[in-house]
Amino acid sequence: MRLVKLDLDHAPYDILIARDLLTQVQHILPLLPQKRVAIVTNETVAPLYLPQLQVALEANGVQVQAIVLPDGEKYKTWETLNLIFDGLLGARAERKTTLIALGGGVIGDMTGFAAAVYQRGVPFIQIPTTLLAQVDSSVGGKTAINHPLGKNMIGSFYQPKLVLADLSTLDTLPPREFSAGLAEIIKYGLIDDLAFFEWLEANIDVLMARDTDALAHAVEHSCQNKARIVAADEKEHGQRALLNLGHTFGHAIEAGLGYGAWLHGEAVAAGMVLAALASKELGQISATDLERITALIAKAGLPTVSPALGAERYLDLMAQDKKVDAGKIKFILMRRLGESYIGELTVPVIQAALTAGCAAA
Amino acid sequence: MRLVKLDLDHAPYDILIARDLLTQVQHILPLLPQKRVAIVTNETVAPLYLPQLQVALEANGVQVQAIVLPDGEKYKTWETLNLIFDGLLGARAERKTTLIALGGGVIGDMTGFAAAVYQRGVPFIQIPTTLLAQVDSSVGGKTAINHPLGKNMIGSFYQPKLVLADLSTLDTLPPREFSAGLAEIIKYGLIDDLAFFEWLEANIDVLMARDTDALAHAVEHSCQNKARIVAADEKEHGQRALLNLGHTFGHAIEAGLGYGAWLHGEAVAAGMVLAALASKELGQISATDLERITALIAKAGLPTVSPALGAERYLDLMAQDKKVDAGKIKFILMRRLGESYIGELTVPVIQAALTAGCAAA
Repeated sequence: MRLVKLDLDHAPYDILIARDLLTQVQHILPLLPQKRVAIVTNETVAPLYLPQLQVALEANGVQVQAIVLPDGEKYKTWETLNLIFDGLLGARAERKTTLIALGGGVIGDMTGFAAAVYQRGVPFIQIPTTLLAQVDSSVGGKTAINHPLGKNMIGSFYQPKLVLADLSTLDTLPPREFSAGLAEIIKYGLIDDLAFFEWLEANIDVLMARDTDALAHAVEHSCQNKARIVAADEKEHGQRALLNLGHTFGHAIEAGLGYGAWLHGEAVAAGMVLAALASKELGQISATDLERITALIAKAGLPTVSPALGAERYLDLMAQDKKVDAGKIKFILMRRLGESYIGELTVPVIQAALTAGCAAA
Repeated sequence: MRLVKLDLDHAPYDILIARDLLTQVQHILPLLPQKRVAIVTNETVAPLYLPQLQVALEANGVQVQAIVLPDGEKYKTWETLNLIFDGLLGARAERKTTLIALGGGVIGDMTGFAAAVYQRGVPFIQIPTTLLAQVDSSVGGKTAINHPLGKNMIGSFYQPKLVLADLSTLDTLPPREFSAGLAEIIKYGLIDDLAFFEWLEANIDVLMARDTDALAHAVEHSCQNKARIVAADEKEHGQRALLNLGHTFGHAIEAGLGYGAWLHGEAVAAGMVLAALASKELGQISATDLERITALIAKAGLPTVSPALGAERYLDLMAQDKKVDAGKIKFILMRRLGESYIGELTVPVIQAALTAGCAAA
């Protein structure tokens, strides 16, 4: 088992990474203030993994309530969140009842937000079952739901007590979702870890074959990188924004196509290519660097060409994104391969990147 | 001007109390990270106080957006909260845009919750315009909305940067709402301040006449008492629960009659009488103490007799209240006049208090 520690002053916690963690409830039991939990999951994950977790907890005297939500980004809404509250209040869940998120990023983000605001805050454990959730969304305490006018616009910073990344749950992950997780893994290499980027270039084929050792290394290394960045800047006053590499363009793609048309990781992958194109436009990375980035993303089974929404629509959607300060749009850009920074782009540079990076209209 | 400081480690702030504070925006301006605010208010308060606040801010170069909500406890819902998000996102409010709550407890609680979760947290200032909000809900950082199955079930602990209690705004407060504020003021005497309780007994008539000096003293003293309790236990792990004196019964009254039938302060007043009856039943306060409590509440224009919902319904509603741990209902009880504690009640004692304290069915 691999262990990554997230060292936050007020609430440090462990991220455990291994196969077959789901039934090892000895990691969960000491953290429960009350022998009562509510497991929030979705219709896809529930038949695969809910029974074994529930049985293992109940065998240890824990009262378990299961709340099963519909599956998909389009359900990351207040209406679905309210199904969690309806379930908790209907069962009279208390302030010491622990919420367990069993699923991907949407389940993790919604359950975390529900835990943050149900009775002004109850304990919370993450059991991410997708690669993307294991390397990104389950770590670091960002929780949210979407609003019709913007993604993740309503949410909280709320840290879990524990993250259990069970690599066995990735066995059932559809290829598209697996690739979407690789997008966030590649992101860590591009932010500030050239050696990891090069390890990924060398190991992308074994990773795509879901080799356990390679996966364990990639998940551990990604969590370490994210934990380091989050511990230094929990509430995103500065450097944490680096984790948004590819996300400003990516959110525009998701919103422009309608949430769910592209997976989040797919939009981030194409968004990273646009960020690389803008960085090359600024003379900061070379054509060869751009090719290496694009090649790795393509080998990971991810899109490298963005949809043809038109520059006007991209600009409009990005202005609605939340990384806006006094009307200027922040972007995460590349100073060189393996080193990103928080910068701003002029409209002509954005247009040039979009022209080079989008499909023909 | 009177100043009460709320000394929280991570976010200390000032509570300013005086007449004509509304236009003294010099207290607000240094706190704005960006010269942009959204004032959230309601249809009753807006015509009375919004223009002067808005003009004073705009005269100092602040961009002001006004969001006017319907008035009443029954609108303390997700649907109304969403009107705030719709307004903020429609105007592209940013992470540094400050939300200002201008109104009573419902506006303050909803605006505070909106500030806590809009883009995962934006700055927030309270300008309470009711007596209840000035002495209670605007101080201490509890924010929430109601859920059909329970009051204040969804919310956050989120502290304002400043509270401006403008006593002039009480001039237009209807008598019923004024009395509702007195209920929370009386509460502070009963929690742990016999001298203040006795000052209230001696000054209830001048207070009811809205004498400025008496009001300033009562508001300042109430805020001092609340600030002391909150600073010692911000997230209600222990002693902060004392502030719920009268509230477990009171919430049951509000929910049982339907939110809005009784004002919150009215329900708390009758709830405090029930808590006193239960305490007398336990032999902890005398018949004379009970009479003094009931007399002061009556002189403040508040109900001392609770509605005849039936003991079963009260018990059921209180079991849904959030101050529940392992199925036992916590109550704030009186050890003696002017000293309360966190305890539990058996069903027979609850029934006896309800029999003595409720109207005939």
